[in-house]
Amino acid sequence: MNRNQLVKQIQEKRSFLCVGLDTDLTKIPNHLKNHPNAIVAFNKAIIDATKDHCVSYKINTAFYEAMGLKGWAAMEETVQYIPDTHLKIADAKRGDIGNTSSQYAKAFFETLPFDAITVAPYMGEDSIRPFLEYEHKWTIVLGLTSNKGAADFELQSTGNQLLYQKVLQTVAQWGNPNNLMFVVGATQATELAIIRQIIPDHFLLVPGVGFQGGSLEEVSKYGLNQQCGLLVNASRAIIYASSGENFATEAKEIAQQYQTEMGQYLPM
Amino acid sequence: MNRNQLVKQIQEKRSFLCVGLDTDLTKIPNHLKNHPNAIVAFNKAIIDATKDHCVSYKINTAFYEAMGLKGWAAMEETVQYIPDTHLKIADAKRGDIGNTSSQYAKAFFETLPFDAITVAPYMGEDSIRPFLEYEHKWTIVLGLTSNKGAADFELQSTGNQLLYQKVLQTVAQWGNPNNLMFVVGATQATELAIIRQIIPDHFLLVPGVGFQGGSLEEVSKYGLNQQCGLLVNASRAIIYASSGENFATEAKEIAQQYQTEMGQYLPM
Repeated sequence: MNRNQLVKQIQEKRSFLCVGLDTDLTKIPNHLKNHPNAIVAFNKAIIDATKDHCVSYKINTAFYEAMGLKGWAAMEETVQYIPDTHLKIADAKRGDIGNTSSQYAKAFFETLPFDAITVAPYMGEDSIRPFLEYEHKWTIVLGLTSNKGAADFELQSTGNQLLYQKVLQTVAQWGNPNNLMFVVGATQATELAIIRQIIPDHFLLVPGVGFQGGSLEEVSKYGLNQQCGLLVNASRAIIYASSGENFATEAKEIAQQYQTEMGQYLPM
Repeated sequence: MNRNQLVKQIQEKRSFLCVGLDTDLTKIPNHLKNHPNAIVAFNKAIIDATKDHCVSYKINTAFYEAMGLKGWAAMEETVQYIPDTHLKIADAKRGDIGNTSSQYAKAFFETLPFDAITVAPYMGEDSIRPFLEYEHKWTIVLGLTSNKGAADFELQSTGNQLLYQKVLQTVAQWGNPNNLMFVVGATQATELAIIRQIIPDHFLLVPGVGFQGGSLEEVSKYGLNQQCGLLVNASRAIIYASSGENFATEAKEIAQQYQTEMGQYLPM
């Protein structure tokens, strides 16, 4: 999926919502737990219920890997079910030396039909380049994350800028706003003004709204650009909105609330 | 596997070799390529041939994920085949917010029987803690890697020390030499003297000997401590020593050469 297609989706739906499929067998509704393919059944119901209100789905690979082979199969079946109109993100936080990153890129961009993958920047340029070589695919590099541990290294000073700022500035030179995005946590909304000075045009993937305490209004105020430039992710707040048989209806309801609020903030 | 068991293995074999199973279907011998379970057949032959000369195996998850579901199954079968006398490392470079890292820890320490996993430090303490909570398991955090991209962030200055030095010093406080190791690339051998000042007691996992150009003698000179404290990994140099039907015999030969050289350097 290219940038024009993504922006068009956002304009048509008046939504920049990404729904996070961090699906955990212990947290899905009881009536589904004995389903022979419970995770996929749950995900399909969530996708059906929310697809008119979001423009992207984000699959958190950890939750699938924790279930072993069956989990990997569930991830495969889920990503294949996501409509092609939606940006399919593998939230995988991969990254290794060049010849290994090439294998990760192959895993998520060829073997699996993801449009985008999250990547950790610590190992530098050759760990990120192999992902950028794919046309119409997106590399989403960790900038400033939403967790407490962001203070340990990301917010440390490296001369005249903080580490995460150096990461944004340096990595931005390896790609362009058509193949590169950055992860910026919603709990760090006040940093968004600074971030927009460094990377005015890139899309930002923003987790941490909802359960992690980030404010959609704040994020929109400081993060939106002329082409939207934001994908705001909500996972638990939507997919676990209800633990009853009405889980999909409730998920739809919350996704719609996000969409309505997002429509008010969109500049276009 | 605990530290005493690992040190005992090293003493008995007079080897601190880790064999890296970065197995790639395009690189295995031709006569195996049509085998119905080629990757596993190749890995089992390599393990049988090298197990007397090494103390650890490292499975590079990227190469298995690139093959999709079949690859994940091959990884599962391979790790189950590694003898319990050997430290089983998942070279996975994972790391995410706490509740997600918990899922990765479950994936590799419970669902799969790995003893150790490599983890990226960028996201800080809560991204690493969940791995450290497992008894007799090892968390191997990226310090200074062997690739060119190490210069981009790892070797950047953060006040009075380089970023990778800050990572070593900070992360060392979250665990101890019985549950924590660090990745230090062999191509950076001259940095090992400085690294040993910061973390004198920890085991270091050292990739980059062989194809990436690192020297075993240099690494041993600056990296060994009283309990060895090193696991030196070789992947391509061993597993692709020959592309003929004699690949396992040749792999054994190279592994044995490493073992002999390591025996000369060991202080104990």
